[in-house]
Amino acid sequence: MEHTDSDTTSLTLLGLGDMGTALARAWLAAGHPTTVWNRTPARAAPLAAAGAEVAETAADAVAANDLVVVCLLDDASVRAALADADLAGKDLVDLTTGTPAEARARAAWAEERGARFLDGGIMAVPPMIGAEGSGGYVFYSGSRPLFDEHRAALAVPAGTVYVGEDPGFAALHDVALLSAMTGMFAGVAHAFALVRDEDVAPKDFAPMLAGWLAAMAGYVNGVAEQLDSGDYTRGVTSNLAMMVRGNATLLRTAEEQQVSPELLTPFMDLMRRRLDDGHPDEGTTGVVDLLAR
Amino acid sequence: MEHTDSDTTSLTLLGLGDMGTALARAWLAAGHPTTVWNRTPARAAPLAAAGAEVAETAADAVAANDLVVVCLLDDASVRAALADADLAGKDLVDLTTGTPAEARARAAWAEERGARFLDGGIMAVPPMIGAEGSGGYVFYSGSRPLFDEHRAALAVPAGTVYVGEDPGFAALHDVALLSAMTGMFAGVAHAFALVRDEDVAPKDFAPMLAGWLAAMAGYVNGVAEQLDSGDYTRGVTSNLAMMVRGNATLLRTAEEQQVSPELLTPFMDLMRRRLDDGHPDEGTTGVVDLLAR
Ligand SMILES: NC(=O)c1ccc[n+]([C@@H]2O[C@H](COP(=O)([O-])OP(=O)(O)OC[C@H]3O[C@@H](n4cnc5c(N)ncnc54)[C@H](OP(=O)(O)O)[C@@H]3O)[C@@H](O)[C@H]2O)c1
Ligand SMILES: NC(=O)c1ccc[n+]([C@@H]2O[C@H](COP(=O)([O-])OP(=O)(O)OC[C@H]3O[C@@H](n4cnc5c(N)ncnc54)[C@H](OP(=O)(O)O)[C@@H]3O)[C@@H](O)[C@H]2O)c1
Repeated sequence: MEHTDSDTTSLTLLGLGDMGTALARAWLAAGHPTTVWNRTPARAAPLAAAGAEVAETAADAVAANDLVVVCLLDDASVRAALADADLAGKDLVDLTTGTPAEARARAAWAEERGARFLDGGIMAVPPMIGAEGSGGYVFYSGSRPLFDEHRAALAVPAGTVYVGEDPGFAALHDVALLSAMTGMFAGVAHAFALVRDEDVAPKDFAPMLAGWLAAMAGYVNGVAEQLDSGDYTRGVTSNLAMMVRGNATLLRTAEEQQVSPELLTPFMDLMRRRLDDGHPDEGTTGVVDLLAR
Repeated sequence: MEHTDSDTTSLTLLGLGDMGTALARAWLAAGHPTTVWNRTPARAAPLAAAGAEVAETAADAVAANDLVVVCLLDDASVRAALADADLAGKDLVDLTTGTPAEARARAAWAEERGARFLDGGIMAVPPMIGAEGSGGYVFYSGSRPLFDEHRAALAVPAGTVYVGEDPGFAALHDVALLSAMTGMFAGVAHAFALVRDEDVAPKDFAPMLAGWLAAMAGYVNGVAEQLDSGDYTRGVTSNLAMMVRGNATLLRTAEEQQVSPELLTPFMDLMRRRLDDGHPDEGTTGVVDLLAR
């Protein structure tokens, strides 16, 4: 079966939580005949009103279409929901968040049952789904033929970024980006804690902080070049010796402002360790090595 | 003394380290007569060749001009360098990195000696100094008349952002932004550690990570609105309950990839504490409260 961009492939969607509901609405709005199923049937009613077919069981929903998308709580719920479904000849797209190993195991499990498998990691929140220009997208990995064949349908709810045949790569990219964001949010919490008891309006402070972080995000490309080359001093403008000295000022300021340094010290400790290992002229890339277990 | 934008105020600069040298070059290039001094005299030679007056002592350098800029290692070196200088009637601009309390104490110290005082926090590395459009800038706080009078000269090496009469505010803003960046860099190190033993090219991965962080930096504005309103659930799209559940996936992935979770767990622990305190519908803003000592 070949599809072109103007196709409105029919598809099945399992899972009508916040994300699944947003996905279903986007496909329905774009004219894709959509069969839905949810463990708790009540959540399907608003979608039925919007034109969705509602299946009584997950197995019925899977039987209705070749393209089957699942967006459930976690990998265990995917296994549970699909337990009785006949997957032979199906194209299974799993948008449930999980780990790389879970995605690889689910891919093998699906292939044993005769399905092609594509895993997805959604880099968006529900309000961004189906919203043109929201910047949201989905990492995909696994079956390239499945991805190519259904690319147009997959592109309806959000942008698509295919990152490799390894079915674990979508989850790996997803989790890596979320992990980095977790670090950034930790830093943001610390920054607001520093200014909060001063006569600094959060609304005046926020655009400066946001602009600074956005500008400094380019640091990532320097880290990548250093990892690629193996030369962790390449292109360094602020070296580790200087940064470790600067860390002392950050910590003294935290103390003055009576803010716990707990969100900063683990990284500072690793910077110090790398410096003490004899790398004053590097940036912070050596810390990547220290994180390996 | 009134200055206009076309003025080329003469000034003194103490400290010719990497940053001081870049500052001196920028002012010389813009036609500002510049008197320089450095503890180790050899570092002044290239600037003399570029047209700088070289003073023998810091006191002589201070005597040469009304506008005196210092950019030394730390606050202790500022005190040491200025010990014998007559500051009466001077406009002292301290671009040395320090804490808010250090800046406040240095301001009081300078004012006792008859000087006006402006503290600065440089948000740039030396290659960005004097480079049009580099995005680098300096936070200033303290004497508003000093800032207004010398604004044109101060704007030569980098952009200027005045953040208040409190002389500690430049350092506070400087340190807050650097602290947030430290968190972001920690997250970046973790992200690269996750992918590094996989068949993922750092150079392909980096632009996705950088783009994601830049896009997510806008989160800061939501945190500010929540702090302003006191309603930490306002505008939340991913709530704490969901994020804490997601953290488990990040930690399992770290374990699969044999990456230490030490850079993520302190923030995750505080998210969990806030959740357990009964705030499932908030974002992460409640963590700011938990950081107060
Ligand atoms: N929401 C977001 O911002 C966001 C962003 C990116 C990725 N995601 C991912 O998208 C997926 C869905 O998220 P969501 O926000 O839609 O979650 P949600 O609102 O909590 O919905 C969870 C869905 O999973 C179903 N479910 C749970 N356990 C099940 C089981 N054992 N068997 C069958 N169905 C089960 C629920 O059915 P019931 O209605 O019967 O409980 C519901 O449809 C998750 O993996 C999430 O990580 C979400
Ligand atoms: N470089 C950057 O990327 C950067 C970015 C933002 C802010 N800053 C801040 O700018 C300031 C200067 O940084 P830098 O990069 O120029 O540092 P640097 O290259 O290490 O130079 C340090 C300067 O301080 C002088 N100094 C040290 N101790 C002294 C003392 N007791 N008495 C007199 N002079 C003393 C040094 O003189 P000698 O030559 O005699 O040793 C030298 O001129 C620091 O506060 C730094 O945090 C730097």
